[in-house]
Amino acid sequence: MIDESIGTVDLADVKQDIYHGIAECNKRGLIHSVKWLAELNYGLTKTEGTTASSSKFPSNPNEGIAENEYDQYCLAKSYFDCREYDRSAYFTQNCESPVPQFLHFYAIYMAKEKRRLENLTDAVNFNQSGNCKDLNDLLGTLKVLYAQRNMDAYLLYLMGVVYKKVELNNLAIPIFIESIHLEPTLWSSWIELAPLITDSAKLMSLNFPSHWMKPIFMARTLVQLSLNDEGFKMFEDLQAAGFKDCVFITSQMAIANHNKRSIFYFLPSNSRFLNFS
Amino acid sequence: MIDESIGTVDLADVKQDIYHGIAECNKRGLIHSVKWLAELNYGLTKTEGTTASSSKFPSNPNEGIAENEYDQYCLAKSYFDCREYDRSAYFTQNCESPVPQFLHFYAIYMAKEKRRLENLTDAVNFNQSGNCKDLNDLLGTLKVLYAQRNMDAYLLYLMGVVYKKVELNNLAIPIFIESIHLEPTLWSSWIELAPLITDSAKLMSLNFPSHWMKPIFMARTLVQLSLNDEGFKMFEDLQAAGFKDCVFITSQMAIANHNKRSIFYFLPSNSRFLNFS
Repeated sequence: MIDESIGTVDLADVKQDIYHGIAECNKRGLIHSVKWLAELNYGLTKTEGTTASSSKFPSNPNEGIAENEYDQYCLAKSYFDCREYDRSAYFTQNCESPVPQFLHFYAIYMAKEKRRLENLTDAVNFNQSGNCKDLNDLLGTLKVLYAQRNMDAYLLYLMGVVYKKVELNNLAIPIFIESIHLEPTLWSSWIELAPLITDSAKLMSLNFPSHWMKPIFMARTLVQLSLNDEGFKMFEDLQAAGFKDCVFITSQMAIANHNKRSIFYFLPSNSRFLNFS
Repeated sequence: MIDESIGTVDLADVKQDIYHGIAECNKRGLIHSVKWLAELNYGLTKTEGTTASSSKFPSNPNEGIAENEYDQYCLAKSYFDCREYDRSAYFTQNCESPVPQFLHFYAIYMAKEKRRLENLTDAVNFNQSGNCKDLNDLLGTLKVLYAQRNMDAYLLYLMGVVYKKVELNNLAIPIFIESIHLEPTLWSSWIELAPLITDSAKLMSLNFPSHWMKPIFMARTLVQLSLNDEGFKMFEDLQAAGFKDCVFITSQMAIANHNKRSIFYFLPSNSRFLNFS
Protein backbone atom coordinates (compact mmCIF):
# COMPACT_ATOMS: atom_id res chain seq x y z
CA MET A 1 0.00 0.00 0.00
CA ILE A 2 2.68 2.46 1.04
CA ASP A 3 5.49 3.18 -1.35
CA GLU A 4 7.42 6.04 0.13
CA SER A 5 10.95 4.77 0.39
CA ILE A 6 13.54 7.36 1.27
CA GLY A 7 16.01 5.99 -1.25
CA THR A 8 19.41 7.60 -1.00
CA VAL A 9 19.94 10.93 0.69
CA ASP A 10 23.10 12.94 1.22
CA LEU A 11 23.36 13.26 4.98
CA ALA A 12 25.49 16.38 4.62
CA ASP A 13 22.53 18.00 2.83
CA VAL A 14 20.21 16.78 5.57
CA LYS A 15 22.42 18.43 8.19
CA GLN A 16 22.42 21.67 6.20
CA ASP A 17 18.62 21.59 6.08
CA ILE A 18 18.51 20.97 9.83
CA TYR A 19 20.92 23.82 10.65
CA HIS A 20 18.82 26.12 8.49
CA GLY A 21 15.66 24.98 10.28
CA ILE A 22 17.22 25.41 13.72
CA ALA A 23 18.40 28.94 12.93
CA GLU A 24 15.04 30.03 11.52
CA CYS A 25 13.02 28.49 14.37
CA ASN A 26 15.39 29.89 17.00
CA LYS A 27 14.87 33.42 15.67
CA ARG A 28 11.12 32.94 16.01
CA GLY A 29 10.95 31.35 19.45
CA LEU A 30 9.75 27.97 18.12
CA ILE A 31 11.67 26.08 20.80
CA HIS A 32 9.99 22.71 20.37
CA SER A 33 10.80 22.54 16.66
CA VAL A 34 14.37 23.50 17.50
CA LYS A 35 14.53 20.69 20.05
CA TRP A 36 13.19 18.09 17.61
CA LEU A 37 15.61 19.18 14.88
CA ALA A 38 18.57 19.31 17.29
CA GLU A 39 17.79 15.77 18.47
CA LEU A 40 17.63 14.53 14.89
CA ASN A 41 20.87 16.33 14.09
CA TYR A 42 22.59 14.86 17.14
CA GLY A 43 21.69 11.39 15.91
CA LEU A 44 23.33 12.20 12.58
CA THR A 45 26.48 13.53 14.21
CA LYS A 46 27.80 10.09 14.93
CA THR A 47 27.16 8.96 11.36
CA GLU A 48 30.42 8.67 9.51
CA GLY A 49 31.23 11.44 7.08
CA THR A 50 28.72 13.92 8.41
CA THR A 51 30.67 15.81 11.05
CA ALA A 52 29.62 19.40 11.43
CA SER A 53 30.89 21.45 8.54
CA SER A 54 32.18 24.95 8.91
CA SER A 55 29.45 26.24 6.64
CA LYS A 56 26.60 25.34 8.94
CA PHE A 57 25.00 28.75 8.85
CA PRO A 58 23.29 30.82 6.25
CA SER A 59 25.52 33.68 5.15
CA ASN A 60 23.36 36.24 6.95
CA PRO A 61 22.11 35.18 10.38
CA ASN A 62 19.71 38.15 10.38
CA GLU A 63 17.89 37.15 7.22
CA GLY A 64 14.25 38.06 7.53
CA ILE A 65 14.90 40.94 9.94
CA ALA A 66 14.97 44.38 8.36
CA GLU A 67 17.93 46.51 9.40
CA ASN A 68 15.70 49.26 10.80
CA GLU A 69 13.57 46.76 12.73
CA TYR A 70 16.47 44.94 14.35
CA ASP A 71 16.38 46.81 17.66
CA GLN A 72 12.62 46.32 18.08
CA TYR A 73 13.03 42.65 17.17
CA CYS A 74 15.89 42.22 19.61
CA LEU A 75 13.86 43.74 22.46
CA ALA A 76 10.71 41.81 21.58
CA LYS A 77 12.60 38.52 21.36
CA SER A 78 14.16 39.11 24.78
CA TYR A 79 10.69 39.71 26.25
CA PHE A 80 9.41 36.61 24.47
CA ASP A 81 12.20 34.49 25.96
CA CYS A 82 11.28 35.82 29.41
CA ARG A 83 7.65 34.87 28.65
CA GLU A 84 6.52 38.51 28.69
CA TYR A 85 4.37 38.00 25.62
CA ASP A 86 2.24 41.15 25.74
CA ARG A 87 5.33 43.34 25.83
CA SER A 88 6.88 41.30 23.04
CA ALA A 89 3.83 41.81 20.84
CA TYR A 90 3.71 45.53 21.61
CA PHE A 91 7.23 46.30 20.42
CA THR A 92 6.84 44.49 17.10
CA GLN A 93 3.43 45.89 16.20
CA ASN A 94 4.73 48.09 13.39
CA CYS A 95 7.30 45.66 12.03
CA GLU A 96 6.93 44.48 8.46
CA SER A 97 9.87 42.14 7.89
CA PRO A 98 9.06 38.42 8.21
CA VAL A 99 10.78 37.46 11.47
CA PRO A 100 9.59 40.30 13.72
CA GLN A 101 6.17 40.14 12.08
CA PHE A 102 5.85 36.45 12.92
CA LEU A 103 7.10 37.11 16.45
CA HIS A 104 4.42 39.77 16.85
CA PHE A 105 1.54 37.44 16.00
CA TYR A 106 3.07 34.47 17.80
CA ALA A 107 3.50 36.59 20.94
CA ILE A 108 -0.16 37.64 20.73
CA TYR A 109 -1.12 33.97 20.50
CA MET A 110 1.16 32.94 23.36
CA ALA A 111 -0.14 35.79 25.54
CA LYS A 112 -3.70 34.56 25.03
CA GLU A 113 -2.70 30.96 25.69
CA LYS A 114 -0.81 31.93 28.84
CA ARG A 115 -3.81 33.85 30.16
CA ARG A 116 -6.16 31.00 29.28
CA LEU A 117 -4.03 28.42 31.10
CA GLU A 118 -3.63 30.67 34.13
CA ASN A 119 -7.37 31.26 34.33
CA LEU A 120 -8.30 27.58 34.22
CA THR A 121 -10.01 26.61 37.42
CA ASP A 122 -10.81 23.10 36.34
CA ALA A 123 -8.58 20.64 34.52
CA VAL A 124 -11.62 19.43 32.62
CA ASN A 125 -11.71 22.67 30.66
CA PHE A 126 -8.18 22.19 29.50
CA ASN A 127 -8.97 21.20 25.94
CA GLN A 128 -12.20 23.04 25.47
CA SER A 129 -12.28 25.54 22.71
CA GLY A 130 -14.80 27.75 24.44
CA ASN A 131 -11.88 29.55 26.01
CA CYS A 132 -10.49 30.36 22.62
CA LYS A 133 -13.13 32.77 21.42
CA ASP A 134 -10.76 35.66 21.91
CA LEU A 135 -8.61 34.22 19.11
CA ASN A 136 -11.03 35.60 16.53
CA ASP A 137 -9.26 38.97 16.29
CA LEU A 138 -5.96 37.26 15.61
CA LEU A 139 -7.55 34.92 13.09
CA GLY A 140 -9.15 37.85 11.31
CA THR A 141 -5.80 39.61 10.92
CA LEU A 142 -4.12 36.43 9.69
CA LYS A 143 -6.91 35.89 7.16
CA VAL A 144 -6.30 39.35 5.72
CA LEU A 145 -2.58 38.58 5.32
CA TYR A 146 -3.47 35.25 3.73
CA ALA A 147 -5.82 36.89 1.26
CA GLN A 148 -2.97 39.24 0.33
CA ARG A 149 -0.72 36.16 -0.23
CA ASN A 150 1.59 37.76 2.31
CA MET A 151 2.44 34.73 4.43
CA ASP A 152 5.56 32.65 4.88
CA ALA A 153 5.70 29.08 6.25
CA TYR A 154 5.78 30.32 9.84
CA LEU A 155 2.72 32.55 9.63
CA LEU A 156 0.90 29.72 7.84
CA TYR A 157 1.84 27.41 10.73
CA LEU A 158 0.41 29.91 13.21
CA MET A 159 -2.76 30.31 11.16
CA GLY A 160 -3.18 26.54 11.15
CA VAL A 161 -2.75 26.41 14.92
CA VAL A 162 -5.40 29.09 15.38
CA TYR A 163 -7.80 27.27 13.02
CA LYS A 164 -7.33 24.15 15.16
CA LYS A 165 -7.97 26.07 18.35
CA VAL A 166 -11.28 27.34 17.03
CA GLU A 167 -12.07 23.82 15.79
CA LEU A 168 -11.89 24.53 12.08
CA ASN A 169 -9.76 21.47 11.43
CA ASN A 170 -10.73 21.12 7.79
CA LEU A 171 -9.43 24.61 7.13
CA ALA A 172 -6.25 23.91 9.11
CA ILE A 173 -5.12 20.93 7.02
CA PRO A 174 -4.43 22.73 3.70
CA ILE A 175 -2.77 25.58 5.58
CA PHE A 176 -0.30 23.22 7.27
CA ILE A 177 0.35 21.54 3.91
CA GLU A 178 1.11 24.94 2.40
CA SER A 179 3.42 25.74 5.30
CA ILE A 180 5.30 22.45 4.90
CA HIS A 181 5.83 23.03 1.19
CA LEU A 182 7.44 26.40 1.90
CA GLU A 183 9.62 25.16 4.78
CA PRO A 184 9.83 21.36 4.95
CA THR A 185 11.97 21.35 8.11
CA LEU A 186 9.30 23.18 10.15
CA TRP A 187 8.45 20.24 12.41
CA SER A 188 5.80 22.30 14.25
CA SER A 189 3.61 22.25 11.14
CA TRP A 190 3.99 18.50 10.63
CA ILE A 191 3.24 17.69 14.24
CA GLU A 192 0.16 19.94 14.36
CA LEU A 193 -1.09 18.34 11.15
CA ALA A 194 -0.62 14.77 12.37
CA PRO A 195 -3.69 14.40 14.65
CA LEU A 196 -5.92 15.77 11.87
CA ILE A 197 -5.12 12.73 9.73
CA THR A 198 -7.58 10.14 10.91
CA ASP A 199 -6.97 7.30 8.46
CA SER A 200 -4.51 6.08 5.86
CA ALA A 201 -6.72 7.15 2.95
CA LYS A 202 -6.51 10.73 4.22
CA LEU A 203 -2.74 10.34 4.63
CA MET A 204 -2.34 9.11 1.05
CA SER A 205 -4.54 11.90 -0.34
CA LEU A 206 -2.37 14.72 0.98
CA ASN A 207 0.21 16.40 -1.25
CA PHE A 208 3.47 16.46 0.70
CA PRO A 209 6.72 17.90 -0.65
CA SER A 210 9.37 15.47 -1.90
CA HIS A 211 11.75 15.91 0.99
CA TRP A 212 13.50 13.65 3.51
CA MET A 213 11.09 14.95 6.17
CA LYS A 214 8.21 13.24 4.34
CA PRO A 215 9.09 9.59 5.11
CA ILE A 216 9.77 10.49 8.75
CA PHE A 217 6.33 12.01 9.03
CA MET A 218 4.63 9.25 7.01
CA ALA A 219 6.19 6.53 9.15
CA ARG A 220 5.24 8.27 12.38
CA THR A 221 1.68 8.83 11.22
CA LEU A 222 1.33 5.18 10.14
CA VAL A 223 2.34 4.13 13.66
CA GLN A 224 -0.18 6.60 15.11
CA LEU A 225 -2.83 5.02 12.88
CA SER A 226 -1.82 1.55 14.19
CA LEU A 227 -0.43 0.59 10.79
CA ASN A 228 2.54 -0.63 12.74
CA ASP A 229 4.19 -2.96 10.22
CA GLU A 230 4.10 -0.35 7.47
CA GLY A 231 5.45 2.32 9.81
CA PHE A 232 8.14 0.03 11.18
CA LYS A 233 9.30 -0.82 7.67
CA MET A 234 9.63 2.84 6.72
CA PHE A 235 11.63 3.56 9.85
CA GLU A 236 13.92 0.65 8.99
CA ASP A 237 14.47 2.22 5.56
CA LEU A 238 15.28 5.54 7.22
CA GLN A 239 17.81 3.85 9.48
CA ALA A 240 19.38 2.17 6.47
CA ALA A 241 19.58 5.55 4.76
CA GLY A 242 21.69 6.94 7.62
CA PHE A 243 19.28 7.97 10.37
CA LYS A 244 20.38 5.03 12.45
CA ASP A 245 21.24 6.78 15.72
CA CYS A 246 18.28 9.14 15.84
CA VAL A 247 16.47 8.64 19.12
CA PHE A 248 13.18 9.81 17.62
CA ILE A 249 13.25 6.98 15.11
CA THR A 250 14.25 4.23 17.53
CA SER A 251 11.58 5.36 20.00
CA GLN A 252 8.93 5.38 17.27
CA MET A 253 9.97 1.84 16.29
CA ALA A 254 9.62 0.81 19.93
CA ILE A 255 6.12 2.31 19.97
CA ALA A 256 5.23 0.36 16.82
CA ASN A 257 6.41 -2.87 18.44
CA HIS A 258 4.54 -2.06 21.62
CA ASN A 259 1.34 -1.33 19.67
CA LYS A 260 1.54 -4.66 17.90
CA ARG A 261 1.66 -6.54 21.18
CA SER A 262 -1.16 -4.49 22.71
CA ILE A 263 -3.52 -5.41 19.91
CA PHE A 264 -3.63 -9.00 21.12
CA TYR A 265 -5.49 -7.96 24.23
CA PHE A 266 -8.43 -6.88 22.12
CA LEU A 267 -8.57 -10.03 20.00
CA PRO A 268 -10.44 -13.24 20.89
CA SER A 269 -8.14 -15.72 22.56
CA ASN A 270 -8.04 -18.12 19.60
CA SER A 271 -6.93 -15.45 17.14
CA ARG A 272 -4.29 -14.46 19.65
CA PHE A 273 -3.10 -18.02 19.56
CA LEU A 274 -3.15 -18.01 15.77
CA ASN A 275 -0.94 -14.95 15.65
CA PHE A 276 1.79 -16.84 17.38
CA SER A 277 1.64 -19.76 15.00
CA MET B 1 31.53 62.88 47.44
CA ILE B 2 30.89 61.01 44.20
CA ASP B 3 32.93 61.98 41.17
CA GLU B 4 32.06 59.43 38.52
CA SER B 5 30.87 61.51 35.61
CA ILE B 6 30.40 59.63 32.38
CA GLY B 7 31.98 62.41 30.33
CA THR B 8 31.64 61.86 26.60
CA VAL B 9 30.95 58.46 25.13
CA ASP B 10 30.53 57.41 21.52
CA LEU B 11 27.03 55.96 21.42
CA ALA B 12 27.95 53.88 18.37
CA ASP B 13 30.59 52.16 20.50
CA VAL B 14 28.04 51.69 23.27
CA LYS B 15 25.69 49.98 20.81
CA GLN B 16 28.53 47.73 19.61
CA ASP B 17 29.23 46.74 23.23
CA ILE B 18 25.54 46.03 23.76
CA TYR B 19 25.20 43.90 20.61
CA HIS B 20 28.25 41.91 21.69
CA GLY B 21 26.76 41.44 25.16
CA ILE B 22 23.38 40.37 23.78
CA ALA B 23 24.96 37.79 21.44
CA GLU B 24 27.14 36.30 24.17
CA CYS B 25 24.34 36.17 26.76
CA ASN B 26 21.89 34.73 24.22
CA LYS B 27 24.26 31.84 23.48
CA ARG B 28 24.42 31.08 27.20
CA GLY B 29 20.73 31.33 28.10
CA LEU B 30 21.20 34.46 30.26
CA ILE B 31 17.82 35.82 29.24
CA HIS B 32 17.52 38.51 31.89
CA SER B 33 20.82 40.10 30.94
CA VAL B 34 19.71 40.01 27.33
CA LYS B 35 16.48 41.75 28.28
CA TRP B 36 18.23 44.50 30.22
CA LEU B 37 20.72 45.11 27.40
CA ALA B 38 18.00 45.06 24.74
CA GLU B 39 15.99 47.62 26.71
CA LEU B 40 19.04 49.89 27.03
CA ASN B 41 19.76 49.45 23.33
CA TYR B 42 16.18 50.28 22.40
CA GLY B 43 16.50 53.55 24.33
CA LEU B 44 19.59 54.38 22.29
CA THR B 45 17.91 53.57 18.98
CA LYS B 46 16.02 56.80 18.90
CA THR B 47 19.14 58.81 19.64
CA GLU B 48 20.28 60.62 16.54
CA GLY B 49 23.23 59.14 14.71
CA THR B 50 23.11 55.74 16.36
CA THR B 51 20.86 53.78 14.09
CA ALA B 52 21.70 50.11 13.89
CA SER B 53 24.81 49.56 11.86
CA SER B 54 25.30 46.68 9.50
CA SER B 55 28.28 45.48 11.54
CA LYS B 56 26.29 44.70 14.64
CA PHE B 57 27.64 41.20 15.05
CA PRO B 58 30.96 39.67 15.82
CA SER B 59 32.48 38.14 12.69
CA ASN B 60 31.89 34.64 14.00
CA PRO B 61 28.53 34.10 15.74
CA ASN B 62 29.80 30.73 17.03
CA GLU B 63 32.79 32.16 18.87
CA GLY B 64 33.40 30.16 22.02
CA ILE B 65 31.83 26.98 20.63
CA ALA B 66 34.31 24.41 19.33
CA GLU B 67 33.48 23.01 15.90
CA ASN B 68 33.34 19.44 17.19
CA GLU B 69 31.12 20.43 20.13
CA TYR B 70 28.58 22.37 18.11
CA ASP B 71 26.01 19.59 17.80
CA GLN B 72 26.11 18.80 21.52
CA TYR B 73 25.82 22.51 22.28
CA CYS B 74 22.92 22.90 19.88
CA LEU B 75 21.01 20.03 21.47
CA ALA B 76 21.80 21.15 25.02
CA LYS B 77 20.74 24.73 24.29
CA SER B 78 17.44 23.52 22.86
CA TYR B 79 16.78 21.51 26.03
CA PHE B 80 17.79 24.50 28.13
CA ASP B 81 15.29 26.73 26.30
CA CYS B 82 12.59 24.13 26.95
CA ARG B 83 13.61 24.17 30.65
CA GLU B 84 14.82 20.56 30.51
CA TYR B 85 17.94 21.41 32.50
CA ASP B 86 19.09 17.91 33.49
CA ARG B 87 19.13 16.82 29.87
CA SER B 88 20.91 20.01 28.89
CA ALA B 89 23.65 19.39 31.46
CA TYR B 90 24.01 15.75 30.40
CA PHE B 91 24.77 16.47 26.77
CA THR B 92 27.45 19.08 27.50
CA GLN B 93 29.27 17.13 30.20
CA ASN B 94 32.35 16.45 28.07
CA CYS B 95 32.49 19.83 26.35
CA GLU B 96 35.57 21.97 26.87
CA SER B 97 34.95 25.10 24.84
CA PRO B 98 33.71 28.11 26.83
CA VAL B 99 30.06 28.40 25.73
CA PRO B 100 28.96 24.74 26.07
CA GLN B 101 31.02 24.45 29.25
CA PHE B 102 29.21 27.40 30.82
CA LEU B 103 25.88 26.01 29.63
CA HIS B 104 26.71 22.70 31.32
CA PHE B 105 27.31 24.25 34.74
CA TYR B 106 24.49 26.77 34.38
CA ALA B 107 22.08 23.95 33.48
CA ILE B 108 23.19 22.01 36.58
CA TYR B 109 22.51 25.11 38.67
CA MET B 110 19.13 25.74 37.05
CA ALA B 111 18.12 22.09 37.48
CA LYS B 112 18.83 22.34 41.21
CA GLU B 113 17.00 25.65 41.49
CA LYS B 114 14.00 24.30 39.59
CA ARG B 115 13.78 21.28 41.89
CA ARG B 116 14.21 23.45 44.96
CA LEU B 117 11.40 25.79 43.92
CA GLU B 118 9.12 22.89 42.99
CA ASN B 119 9.72 21.23 46.35
CA LEU B 120 8.90 24.29 48.40
CA THR B 121 5.87 23.64 50.54
CA ASP B 122 6.00 26.94 52.34
CA ALA B 123 6.60 30.36 50.86
CA VAL B 124 8.54 31.26 54.00
CA ASN B 125 11.35 28.93 52.96
CA PHE B 126 11.72 30.74 49.67
CA ASN B 127 14.93 32.55 50.48
CA GLN B 128 16.45 30.15 52.93
CA SER B 129 19.81 28.75 52.00
CA GLY B 130 19.23 25.49 53.84
CA ASN B 131 17.78 24.19 50.61
CA CYS B 132 20.99 24.94 48.81
CA LYS B 133 23.27 22.42 50.45
CA ASP B 134 23.27 20.35 47.30
CA LEU B 135 25.13 23.19 45.56
CA ASN B 136 28.36 22.09 47.21
CA ASP B 137 29.29 19.66 44.44
CA LEU B 138 28.87 22.37 41.83
CA LEU B 139 30.82 24.85 43.94
CA GLY B 140 33.65 22.34 44.36
CA THR B 141 33.95 21.86 40.61
CA LEU B 142 33.90 25.60 40.00
CA LYS B 143 36.60 26.13 42.64
CA VAL B 144 38.86 23.67 40.83
CA LEU B 145 38.39 25.57 37.56
CA TYR B 146 39.06 28.83 39.38
CA ALA B 147 42.27 27.48 40.90
CA GLN B 148 43.33 26.51 37.37
CA ARG B 149 42.61 30.11 36.25
CA ASN B 150 40.31 28.51 33.72
CA MET B 151 37.28 30.77 34.03
CA ASP B 152 35.74 33.40 31.82
CA ALA B 153 33.39 36.17 32.92
CA TYR B 154 30.35 33.91 32.68
CA LEU B 155 31.69 31.09 34.83
CA LEU B 156 32.85 33.69 37.34
CA TYR B 157 29.32 35.08 37.40
CA LEU B 158 27.93 31.61 38.09
CA MET B 159 30.50 31.01 40.82
CA GLY B 160 29.49 34.28 42.46
CA VAL B 161 25.84 33.29 42.31
CA VAL B 162 26.61 29.96 43.98
CA TYR B 163 28.69 31.68 46.66
CA LYS B 164 25.70 33.92 47.39
CA LYS B 165 23.34 30.94 47.57
CA VAL B 166 25.51 29.27 50.20
CA GLU B 167 25.78 32.62 52.03
CA LEU B 168 29.45 33.25 51.38
CA ASN B 169 28.82 36.83 50.32
CA ASN B 170 32.30 38.07 51.10
CA LEU B 171 33.74 35.54 48.70
CA ALA B 172 31.14 36.43 46.07
CA ILE B 173 32.06 40.12 45.85
CA PRO B 174 35.61 39.81 44.40
CA ILE B 175 34.38 37.10 42.02
CA PHE B 176 31.69 39.39 40.58
CA ILE B 177 34.26 42.19 40.29
CA GLU B 178 36.56 39.86 38.36
CA SER B 179 33.68 38.85 36.11
CA ILE B 180 32.78 42.47 35.40
CA HIS B 181 36.36 43.33 34.47
CA LEU B 182 36.40 40.54 31.91
CA GLU B 183 32.97 41.33 30.45
CA PRO B 184 31.67 44.75 31.52
CA THR B 185 28.34 44.35 29.70
CA LEU B 186 27.40 41.26 31.74
CA TRP B 187 24.54 42.90 33.65
CA SER B 188 23.84 39.68 35.57
CA SER B 189 27.13 40.11 37.46
CA TRP B 190 26.45 43.76 38.30
CA ILE B 191 22.92 43.08 39.50
CA GLU B 192 23.99 40.14 41.68
CA LEU B 193 26.75 42.26 43.17
CA ALA B 194 24.47 45.20 43.98
CA PRO B 195 22.70 43.90 47.13
CA LEU B 196 26.10 42.93 48.62
CA ILE B 197 27.10 46.60 48.70
CA THR B 198 25.64 47.82 51.95
CA ASP B 199 27.01 51.37 52.16
CA SER B 200 28.69 54.04 50.07
CA ALA B 201 32.11 53.38 51.63
CA LYS B 202 31.95 49.83 50.32
CA LEU B 203 30.81 51.12 46.93
CA MET B 204 33.75 53.51 46.73
CA SER B 205 36.25 50.85 47.80
CA LEU B 206 35.49 48.50 44.91
CA ASN B 207 37.64 48.48 41.80
CA PHE B 208 35.28 48.72 38.84
CA PRO B 209 36.44 48.80 35.22
CA SER B 210 36.47 52.18 33.44
CA HIS B 211 33.48 51.52 31.25
CA TRP B 212 30.18 53.22 30.49
CA MET B 213 28.44 50.48 32.51
CA LYS B 214 30.14 51.77 35.67
CA PRO B 215 28.21 55.06 36.07
CA ILE B 216 24.92 53.25 35.36
CA PHE B 217 25.66 50.79 38.14
CA MET B 218 27.03 53.45 40.50
CA ALA B 219 23.97 55.64 40.05
CA ARG B 220 21.58 52.74 40.58
CA THR B 221 23.45 51.60 43.69
CA LEU B 222 23.44 55.11 45.14
CA VAL B 223 19.66 55.20 44.74
CA GLN B 224 19.43 51.78 46.41
CA LEU B 225 21.49 53.16 49.30
CA SER B 226 19.09 56.12 49.54
CA LEU B 227 21.77 58.53 48.34
CA ASN B 228 19.08 59.85 46.06
CA ASP B 229 20.51 63.24 45.11
CA GLU B 230 23.88 61.77 44.15
CA GLY B 231 22.25 58.98 42.17
CA PHE B 232 19.83 61.37 40.46
CA LYS B 233 22.71 63.65 39.45
CA MET B 234 24.61 60.75 37.87
CA PHE B 235 21.55 59.65 35.94
CA GLU B 236 21.14 63.23 34.69
CA ASP B 237 24.73 63.10 33.44
CA LEU B 238 24.00 59.79 31.70
CA GLN B 239 20.97 61.30 30.02
CA ALA B 240 23.04 64.27 28.89
CA ALA B 241 25.63 61.84 27.49
CA GLY B 242 22.97 60.27 25.23
CA PHE B 243 21.09 57.73 27.33
CA LYS B 244 18.09 60.03 27.37
CA ASP B 245 15.37 57.61 26.20
CA CYS B 246 16.44 54.58 28.25
CA VAL B 247 13.51 53.46 30.32
CA PHE B 248 15.80 51.93 32.95
CA ILE B 249 17.33 55.32 33.64
CA THR B 250 14.10 57.28 33.75
CA SER B 251 12.53 54.70 36.05
CA GLN B 252 15.54 54.81 38.38
CA MET B 253 15.24 58.60 38.48
CA ALA B 254 11.58 58.22 39.38
CA ILE B 255 12.55 55.86 42.20
CA ALA B 256 15.10 58.40 43.46
CA ASN B 257 12.45 61.11 43.50
CA HIS B 258 9.97 58.80 45.18
CA ASN B 259 12.54 57.87 47.87
CA LYS B 260 13.18 61.53 48.62
CA ARG B 261 9.50 62.19 49.21
CA SER B 262 9.05 59.09 51.35
CA ILE B 263 11.71 60.28 53.78
CA PHE B 264 9.48 63.13 54.91
CA TYR B 265 7.07 60.70 56.50
CA PHE B 266 9.77 59.64 58.96
CA LEU B 267 10.82 63.19 59.90
CA PRO B 268 9.22 65.33 62.61
CA SER B 269 6.62 67.64 61.16
CA ASN B 270 8.63 70.84 61.62
CA SER B 271 11.65 69.49 59.71
CA ARG B 272 9.26 68.41 57.00
CA PHE B 273 8.03 71.96 56.83
CA LEU B 274 11.61 73.22 56.71
CA ASN B 275 12.37 71.02 53.74
CA PHE B 276 9.78 72.83 51.69
CA SER B 277 11.17 76.25 52.51
